Amino acid sequence: MKVLVINAGSSSLKYQLFDMDAQTVLAKGLCERIGIDGKLTHQGGSDEKYKADVPMSTHADAIKAVIDILLDEKWGVIKDMSEINAVGHRVVHGGEYFADSVLITDEVIKAIEACIPLAPLHNTPNLIGIHACEEVMGKDVPQVAVFDTAFHQTMPPKNYMYAIPYEYYEKYKIRRYGFHGTSHKYVSQQAAEMLGRPIEDLKIITCHLGNGSSISAIDGGKSVDTSMGFTPLDGLPMGTRSGNIDPAIIDFLAEHEGIDAHEVINILNKKSGMLGISGVSSDFRDLDSAIAEGNVRAALAKDMFNLSVKKIIGSFIAAMGGVDAIVFTAGVGENDRSVRWDVCEHMEYLGIKIDPEKNKFRGRQMDISIDYARVRVLVIPTNEELVIAQDTQRLVSEAAAK
Amino acid sequence: MKVLVINAGSSSLKYQLFDMDAQTVLAKGLCERIGIDGKLTHQGGSDEKYKADVPMSTHADAIKAVIDILLDEKWGVIKDMSEINAVGHRVVHGGEYFADSVLITDEVIKAIEACIPLAPLHNTPNLIGIHACEEVMGKDVPQVAVFDTAFHQTMPPKNYMYAIPYEYYEKYKIRRYGFHGTSHKYVSQQAAEMLGRPIEDLKIITCHLGNGSSISAIDGGKSVDTSMGFTPLDGLPMGTRSGNIDPAIIDFLAEHEGIDAHEVINILNKKSGMLGISGVSSDFRDLDSAIAEGNVRAALAKDMFNLSVKKIIGSFIAAMGGVDAIVFTAGVGENDRSVRWDVCEHMEYLGIKIDPEKNKFRGRQMDISIDYARVRVLVIPTNEELVIAQDTQRLVSEAAAK
Repeated sequence: MKVLVINAGSSSLKYQLFDMDAQTVLAKGLCERIGIDGKLTHQGGSDEKYKADVPMSTHADAIKAVIDILLDEKWGVIKDMSEINAVGHRVVHGGEYFADSVLITDEVIKAIEACIPLAPLHNTPNLIGIHACEEVMGKDVPQVAVFDTAFHQTMPPKNYMYAIPYEYYEKYKIRRYGFHGTSHKYVSQQAAEMLGRPIEDLKIITCHLGNGSSISAIDGGKSVDTSMGFTPLDGLPMGTRSGNIDPAIIDFLAEHEGIDAHEVINILNKKSGMLGISGVSSDFRDLDSAIAEGNVRAALAKDMFNLSVKKIIGSFIAAMGGVDAIVFTAGVGENDRSVRWDVCEHMEYLGIKIDPEKNKFRGRQMDISIDYARVRVLVIPTNEELVIAQDTQRLVSEAAAK
Repeated sequence: MKVLVINAGSSSLKYQLFDMDAQTVLAKGLCERIGIDGKLTHQGGSDEKYKADVPMSTHADAIKAVIDILLDEKWGVIKDMSEINAVGHRVVHGGEYFADSVLITDEVIKAIEACIPLAPLHNTPNLIGIHACEEVMGKDVPQVAVFDTAFHQTMPPKNYMYAIPYEYYEKYKIRRYGFHGTSHKYVSQQAAEMLGRPIEDLKIITCHLGNGSSISAIDGGKSVDTSMGFTPLDGLPMGTRSGNIDPAIIDFLAEHEGIDAHEVINILNKKSGMLGISGVSSDFRDLDSAIAEGNVRAALAKDMFNLSVKKIIGSFIAAMGGVDAIVFTAGVGENDRSVRWDVCEHMEYLGIKIDPEKNKFRGRQMDISIDYARVRVLVIPTNEELVIAQDTQRLVSEAAAK
């Protein structure tokens, strides 16, 4: 089975074509500047990258461009569009409707639409991507939605409710949803495999640390807590996001800066976090360069990040009553050994100690704890696209078997 | 030395008169409805309470009423106003100016004024109380300011900074300050005494749980972290306060409820927390009654509170790299054994286990851990007024010795 994985943004669209039988990625690429002019970057068959200006006034145009390049004599990897057996879509917000991936039907589309107020910037383009695929590929190619929120739907109310008037939960469904669920699920399952133990017996804390970051507490294979909340602004400080702060700061800033809450939240999303503190960059590699040059605020930003990760790990250990493994994943988690070191330093009390030599490796699956540590600290590269492809294959096969 | 301790609010004024030589409280009471009509509740000399309507159009009138009743033949405890050697004031916000209590001078008053934007509802009446005492008692009676924030001034930047644009710290001094410092300091020192160990060698987590709640990490006698932040809205969910939430909720509520950020923050301060979730009450005793009657939302509110306390304890253990003692104090911490039990349940991994029998006692200093637990869990009644009186005595004596 060949599965096309689509991640549609407002003016961009990422894709990967999987051969599920061979468990390989046949091709991948990115459409950018959709609705503006259009730019395609594609890689298939070889290591070489194809880049071209391709007019894309709509997402359907982008999908057409993807199909064209997948069929291309030089750059393509399939002979006929019908070789694509199914499409898997990343959808950010499934609200309380979806605790798993789902075959897309009219009812599913209605439910995704109902979640638009919870994630207008994400669900809207995700839906456009779904409609564009149907338009270009036809109704007969099954499509699957894989939600960032679904994995966290197992959280108990005491973990997902905010202490605000209850009516706001009833009226607007304001609660903690959590994101990066596909990644947290994937790396926690990989961790259980690495440890050779059933996931049902394990307490795992997964740290998805990238430009956006979230940490999850996974007890017996189920997400019981996560640091992102109603939106991806909650939790840790991130590249440009503040994470959670005293809510009163928003009112204070609105009043003293003469702006409204919406503008303040925009600043908290786009000009805060590592960028806001350092004044240098949201990118951890840039922070490291600045720190090497003696930039005190860059060092402060990274210290704040590491301390926040450490504190959330501690809070989840307390809430779960222990931990068997801590997983670092995503751009920063996989590649930044100084983050892993600083987060895990002085954590012997909690059974955590990493080996500085093992910690030097990057970008591959690895147990970096010292041999006698009670808690295994693992680095596991995440692969959200693979999970989307696998879920798509599973649901399409199940539907076919009925 | 006799010290009058004053805690002045916008329309109220609490007082206690201490005899520091005998280490006793001679009298205490409360002026209410200042500027409206005026009500005095006083207790001195006996267990009996005196209650009366006393016109108080200003805080100076209230101070006069306090002096009058302290001199009263039946209810009084002193013969002459001159017996009051000094006045200690609770002042909520000392900003970054004060890391300790201080003898009040014109410069000190200017600094307290400079902190008004950080705590307009508190510092303004605190200053009025100071001026009222000077007006009634004269310039020669030394006055001391004891700040809620001072004890937390030892926090390192990575603990007190928020990940928002750095300029907001420079421009407005937006940072984590923390509150209840007098209480955290007092109970941590008491804890060291109970354990018979120098506080310099101890890692202590103090849980001040009342209608307002905060938790502090105290390493070697110094506050290194605390859950309240820029304002007392940050951190734990409380009686009517939300604690920290996803900042994006404020914008969402402003938009969907058609109100501004200021109104949202007002709701987060006054209609949220235990009250907002339960719909019953902000008082933990009322929640317990409701839970006994099967109220699910009251149970949820308390579960959320207990989980939040547990998570913050875990985060501080991780940040400090261990813990020797956990202290419960203030109304809920001293009296609500179900909170202590639920917070400490399943914490054996962290070395914490309380004895259900010992946990039954209330309102007195007590080690409630099981004998072999690595971490001592202590209940210590707080006494902020005593600390204010002691600091006042210390500073006045030091000044006299110069």
